[in-house]
Amino acid sequence: MAEELVGNCLISQSGGPTAVINASVAGVVAEALNHACIEEVYGSLNGVLGLLNEDFVDLAAESQQAIRGLRYTPGAALGTCRTKLKKPADLERGLAVLQAHNIRYYFHIGDADSQETALKLSELAKAQGYDLRVIGVPKTIENDMSATDHCPGYGSALKFIGTTVKELALDADAIGQGDLVTIVEVMGRNTGWLAAGASLAKRRDHPNDPPHLVYLPEVPFSNEKFLEDVRRILKREKHCVVVASEGLVDKDSNYVAVESGTNEAQLGGVGEFMKDLVESQIGAKARVSRLGVAQRAAAHLASKTDADEAFLVGQAAVKAAVNGETDKLVTLVRGDGENYTCETGLSALSDVVGNLKKLPKEWVNEDGISLNFQFFRYATPLIQGEVTVPYDNGLPAYARLHKESVDKTQPGYEA
Amino acid sequence: MAEELVGNCLISQSGGPTAVINASVAGVVAEALNHACIEEVYGSLNGVLGLLNEDFVDLAAESQQAIRGLRYTPGAALGTCRTKLKKPADLERGLAVLQAHNIRYYFHIGDADSQETALKLSELAKAQGYDLRVIGVPKTIENDMSATDHCPGYGSALKFIGTTVKELALDADAIGQGDLVTIVEVMGRNTGWLAAGASLAKRRDHPNDPPHLVYLPEVPFSNEKFLEDVRRILKREKHCVVVASEGLVDKDSNYVAVESGTNEAQLGGVGEFMKDLVESQIGAKARVSRLGVAQRAAAHLASKTDADEAFLVGQAAVKAAVNGETDKLVTLVRGDGENYTCETGLSALSDVVGNLKKLPKEWVNEDGISLNFQFFRYATPLIQGEVTVPYDNGLPAYARLHKESVDKTQPGYEA
Repeated sequence: MAEELVGNCLISQSGGPTAVINASVAGVVAEALNHACIEEVYGSLNGVLGLLNEDFVDLAAESQQAIRGLRYTPGAALGTCRTKLKKPADLERGLAVLQAHNIRYYFHIGDADSQETALKLSELAKAQGYDLRVIGVPKTIENDMSATDHCPGYGSALKFIGTTVKELALDADAIGQGDLVTIVEVMGRNTGWLAAGASLAKRRDHPNDPPHLVYLPEVPFSNEKFLEDVRRILKREKHCVVVASEGLVDKDSNYVAVESGTNEAQLGGVGEFMKDLVESQIGAKARVSRLGVAQRAAAHLASKTDADEAFLVGQAAVKAAVNGETDKLVTLVRGDGENYTCETGLSALSDVVGNLKKLPKEWVNEDGISLNFQFFRYATPLIQGEVTVPYDNGLPAYARLHKESVDKTQPGYEA
Repeated sequence: MAEELVGNCLISQSGGPTAVINASVAGVVAEALNHACIEEVYGSLNGVLGLLNEDFVDLAAESQQAIRGLRYTPGAALGTCRTKLKKPADLERGLAVLQAHNIRYYFHIGDADSQETALKLSELAKAQGYDLRVIGVPKTIENDMSATDHCPGYGSALKFIGTTVKELALDADAIGQGDLVTIVEVMGRNTGWLAAGASLAKRRDHPNDPPHLVYLPEVPFSNEKFLEDVRRILKREKHCVVVASEGLVDKDSNYVAVESGTNEAQLGGVGEFMKDLVESQIGAKARVSRLGVAQRAAAHLASKTDADEAFLVGQAAVKAAVNGETDKLVTLVRGDGENYTCETGLSALSDVVGNLKKLPKEWVNEDGISLNFQFFRYATPLIQGEVTVPYDNGLPAYARLHKESVDKTQPGYEA
C-alpha cells in the first residue's frame, strides 16, 4: 500500500470532445468520492487554460443527477482547449496554482499530444519537491494512442460512422436513375482507424455490401487506381459508396486535399476532390457527405461498450493515483479469450507522448480498398450496445453542470 | 358503400427517400391484405420507371417480418426516381401496363410535384373508360405540400436536425479558445420548414440557447445584417451557432449560393459562403456542417409520431380507395384540442399538384432570425417519441425486401 497522500484533486479535459469524454469525468468524480484522502474534487475550465487562469469549479457540489448525466452527454462539460503548456513560465504558473489549491491528484483526459503537458507538470512538481500524482486518461475518436488496445471515443465514432454509411447507402441504392457515386469523408487525421470502421456497415459474409471502396492514409492514393475502382463498382452495382479518410496522401506522402490556409487541424476537402474527379473523368453524378464534427458529438448513438469503458478508465485513474501511481496513462487491455473482455492497465506517460499508433497494414486487403477479418475482429466488439439517452420533448436531454466557481487565490497571469 | 371493384393494387415511391417513406409502403400492404377485393399487391420498382419498364414485384410474397421492418428502414425499399410521366406515349404505356396486370388500385407515395403523374394516369384511365382508383400518399421532408397539416417525413427530419444542432452546439461550446462560429446548412429547397425546426434545440424559456441565428428563405438575406447578427452573438456568448437554409435568397430573390452547373435539385453552398464572410469580415474562426442526405436517411433517430403517421396515411389510402375514392391525396388533419391529435382526411389531387406551402411569415419573429411560439406549437408534437430500431452486432438491422419479380406481359418500351 502506498503512503497516504491527503489533498484535493483536479480534472481537466483536452483536445476535441468525444461522445464519451464526459463519461470519463463522471468516472473520476464517482471514484474520487470513495476515497477519504481526496478532499475536494475540482474541474479545470477549458483544459490547461484553467490552470493558467485559475478557473476551477467545484465538482463535488454538482448534483448526483448531473454527474450521472455526463455518462451520455456529448461535448466537454468542463470545456477544453488545444493549448499545451510548454514555456517554463506557463508550467510554473500551472504548478503554483495547483499548489495554492493543494491539488495532490491531477487527472488529465486527453490524447497522446495533450498528455505532454500533464507529464511536464509532473516533472516540474518533482523537481520542486511538491508531492503530486498525475494520471492521464485516454480519449480520442482517432484511436491513435499507443500503449492502449483502443481509445475511449473511438467505438462511439465507429458506431456513428457505420450507421450513417449504412443509411446513406440505402438512400443511394433507392435512386434508380443512372450511376451515382456517394462519397463519405471521415475524420482520422493521419491514420485510417475511423475510415476503416465504415466497413462495419457490411453485413457478415457480404463483402459486396457498401461501402464498396475505403481509402486510408496507410495506402498511397492514386487518381488512376481510384477511377478504375469506381468504374469497376459502377459496372457491378448501380451505385458506388466510397469512404475517404480526410488525411489521404499520394505516393510522395503529400496530402491529396487540404483546405486553404491550412494546418493539420484543418485537413479536409478530399470528398470534393474525389467528386470532381468522378464527374470530370467518369461523367457519373457524385455527392459528398462530410461527416464532420457529428463524428465526435453524436452521443445519441454512442456505443455502450465505449461509454462504459470511458467511465471505467476514469475510475481506474483515481484508483491508480490513490495507490501511489503517477506519470501513468490508464490503458485498455483486451483479454485473450474468444469473447471480448477488457480491463484497465497502466503505461508510462513518457511512452505515450508523441507516439502515434497506425492502423496495421496487414489488416488491409491487397486490393487496398477493404479490410480483412483482423480489423473486423478488432473493431466489432467496440460498437456493441446502445446507451440509453433520456429524451425530453422529443430531443435528447443532455446534462449541464452548474459550475460553481472555486475562489481564486493567485494574481492574474499574463503569459 | 361504393361499388365493389375487384382487382390488383400497385404501390410506387417517388422523389427523395425519407426516414419513413417505407412505413407508408408497410401501411398500404398491411391494409390491402384486409380487403378481399384487392387480389395481388404489387410494388413498382423505381417509381413510375417501373410502369414504363414493367418492373413489378410481388409484395404479398414478402415475409411479414420484412414488411414490419419497413416501419423503421430508411431509403426507398421499392426504389424511387425523379421522373414524371408527361409525354402522351409514356402515359399510355403506363396505363397499358396497369391494365395488363389488372391494376385497379394505384397508390403513389410522393411529394406535390410527383403526384402530377398519378393524376395524369387517372385522367387517361377515365378517358379510356378503364376503372382505376388512384390515391396519393404524401411524403417529403421539406413539408411543402399544401392541403395537409404536415407531411410524413418532416417530423423525423426535424428530430434529426434538432438533435444534431444540439450536439454540435455542445461541442462548440466546449471549445474555449476565441470566437467560433458554427454554421449548419440544412435542406428545404425554397421553404424554411426544415431550417426553422433547428430552433427546437432550444430549451423551453431559454431563447438565448443555440441555435442563435436561423436564416430562412422567407426572409431576404443581407450580408450586412448577417455580419451584424454574428457580431452581436459573439459579444454575448463565446460562440455562435448559425442555421442556414440551402435556399436563401437576397432582396432581389436571387439565390445566395448555388453549386456550379446547378439546378434546383443542387442548391447548396450557403454554409461555405457564410464561412467566407465570417472569416474575411469578422476574422473569427468558422466551421460548416452540411447535414446533407442524412436529414432524410437517419432512421435510427426517427420520430415515432412521424413513423406512425406515415404508416397511417398508407392504411388510409387503401381504405379510401376501397370506399370508392379516387384522384385524392390522403392528408393529415390536426385536432383542435390543447393536446395534439391527428387523423387522416382527403383532398383533391388537383389542388395539391404544383401548389407549394410556405412557412407562414407571421411565425418568424421581427428580428428575422428566430421563430415564435406559433412555430413551436406547430412543430413540437411532430418530433415526439422514438422508434425502436433493432440492432444487430452494434448497428441498426434494417429490413430488406426479397423482391420477387412479377412476370412481364408487355413488350419492351423505348420512350
